[in-house]
Amino acid sequence: MCEAHAYLLRDNTEEKILESVDLVEMDGEDIHMVNIFGEQKTIRGKLTRYNNQEGKIIIEPI
Amino acid sequence: MCEAHAYLLRDNTEEKILESVDLVEMDGEDIHMVNIFGEQKTIRGKLTRYNNQEGKIIIEPI
Repeated sequence: MCEAHAYLLRDNTEEKILESVDLVEMDGEDIHMVNIFGEQKTIRGKLTRYNNQEGKIIIEPI
Repeated sequence: MCEAHAYLLRDNTEEKILESVDLVEMDGEDIHMVNIFGEQKTIRGKLTRYNNQEGKIIIEPI
């Protein structure tokens, strides 16, 4: 199990918004995500950090 | 081993630019990457896609 989780960084706090992300696609300011369970989430923001070791995808609001 | 590799997408061709990426940080239009061997690479571009299953981080030139 080496999937990363997506977090929204707001006010220095990381809020987990999607577990076990399998796919991330940028579409302008939209970030589309799909996880290994088939759950989908689209959020407006900017992907600012990816840390494989910590399993984190960090998104900041625009 | 579940690290993703970074590819630069140019003219519909994916060119591998860094193996086994551990950390990606966006700094404006710069993308800083560090891999598990400690190699670092900074490239100007836009991260457009991340596919965990394929182990791919896709960057497009700006």
